Amino acid sequence: MKRKLRMTVSYDGTDYNGFQIQPKGRTIQGELETALRALTGEEVKVFGSGRTDAGVHAKGQVIHFETESSIPAEKWPLAVNTKLPPSIVVLAAEEARADFHARHSAVRKTYRYSIWNAPFPDVFMRNYSIHISQPLNLTAMKEAALHLMGTHEFRSFCSSRTGVSDHYRTIYRSVWEKEGPALHYYIEGNGFLYNMVRIIVGTLIEVGQGKRGAAEIRAVLEAKKRKAAGPTSPAHGLALWKVDYGDFA
Amino acid sequence: MKRKLRMTVSYDGTDYNGFQIQPKGRTIQGELETALRALTGEEVKVFGSGRTDAGVHAKGQVIHFETESSIPAEKWPLAVNTKLPPSIVVLAAEEARADFHARHSAVRKTYRYSIWNAPFPDVFMRNYSIHISQPLNLTAMKEAALHLMGTHEFRSFCSSRTGVSDHYRTIYRSVWEKEGPALHYYIEGNGFLYNMVRIIVGTLIEVGQGKRGAAEIRAVLEAKKRKAAGPTSPAHGLALWKVDYGDFA
Repeated sequence: MKRKLRMTVSYDGTDYNGFQIQPKGRTIQGELETALRALTGEEVKVFGSGRTDAGVHAKGQVIHFETESSIPAEKWPLAVNTKLPPSIVVLAAEEARADFHARHSAVRKTYRYSIWNAPFPDVFMRNYSIHISQPLNLTAMKEAALHLMGTHEFRSFCSSRTGVSDHYRTIYRSVWEKEGPALHYYIEGNGFLYNMVRIIVGTLIEVGQGKRGAAEIRAVLEAKKRKAAGPTSPAHGLALWKVDYGDFA
Repeated sequence: MKRKLRMTVSYDGTDYNGFQIQPKGRTIQGELETALRALTGEEVKVFGSGRTDAGVHAKGQVIHFETESSIPAEKWPLAVNTKLPPSIVVLAAEEARADFHARHSAVRKTYRYSIWNAPFPDVFMRNYSIHISQPLNLTAMKEAALHLMGTHEFRSFCSSRTGVSDHYRTIYRSVWEKEGPALHYYIEGNGFLYNMVRIIVGTLIEVGQGKRGAAEIRAVLEAKKRKAAGPTSPAHGLALWKVDYGDFA
């Protein structure tokens, strides 16, 4: 009998061409489907909470899939991990309701973006943060981040090559945390437009560099034009941190 | 005119065949000499505070070399970094006295060894820590570590394939620190025998697993035989953390 399983997956996106299966290059979805096929003998189709771009990481991506296998849910992480490369690790697995969908059932997502703000890069964080040698004004970046809280039309923070018509999203958390020379930006929302977090971070960095005032974020939101915002920050500083499912959790 | 420079260097040892130049494989010393040659046009010979084995990392390795170049000391890190791969980063450079030697002048060294003690490995720490899924008794490991403090004959904690005759070393610090699921062991001493830190950690892990009592460390020291101690822990959990030069500092 078919059953549905939900798994929490972490990955180092450095050597992958993103989450979703592509004509070229290794992908997270591809590796997961190969591992599940090796384990179950079935052609398993994996659904993620959303795509992550090439080079983007995940601490808590959530996926679901259907299987005929009778392996108990708690045995799956260890079993699947033996079939996966070390850069992808399943952290948890549980039985999912028939109407659960990793993407459609998600109610909130949290991303983290990391900056190593010191004269020289850190070799151990080089794949998981971007390096900015000039000191950033963290106070201004924190203030600017707060202007993103609440429901806004995020058209200015959306890659222009997208077909989405509704640009309204609600942000529940938008904070910077300092950990030694590392600056971590956490943003939690009910959904994100294409490249939205990376464009927000590119704009907040300009605030930290004194190129824009913190309050200017409001004007950027109101402009509703991509060119009003800053550049898209590099992919490797970004990680999908957590996906929440509300009643499904 | 020849001058002597001293540099602090960090590296991710994952893809290197250790610090010292070998007949086969890329080495840290080799990459540094190539970068310095590209920068100065000279055949520069690099001396480190000590070798690190294949897979071992460094946060603060110290090297010295002689050069005819007149580049001011503070300009060296940025200049050398442009010639190095991203896995090696020069963090500081300063003028050194003519009698300074990165190895002979060192008076204390600190190493860090990291364990990821959780059911599943962390993808971002997988190259910088070893994974142990069973919970370890940290209290017992902390107590056992204290027995190594002071001056002892460390013959039991030395790889048998070494020609050293003096096995006495003094340990100034031997502590475990917990950071979430990560356990970091810091050991500072006036010198270390071959594989000494990795054998110490292998033995302390056996204490954490309940295979040995904490006080048994004294008996291991007194046995003065390699086989009295535990296994050599894997290289990739180890990092040369800091080198102290006392009056030269």
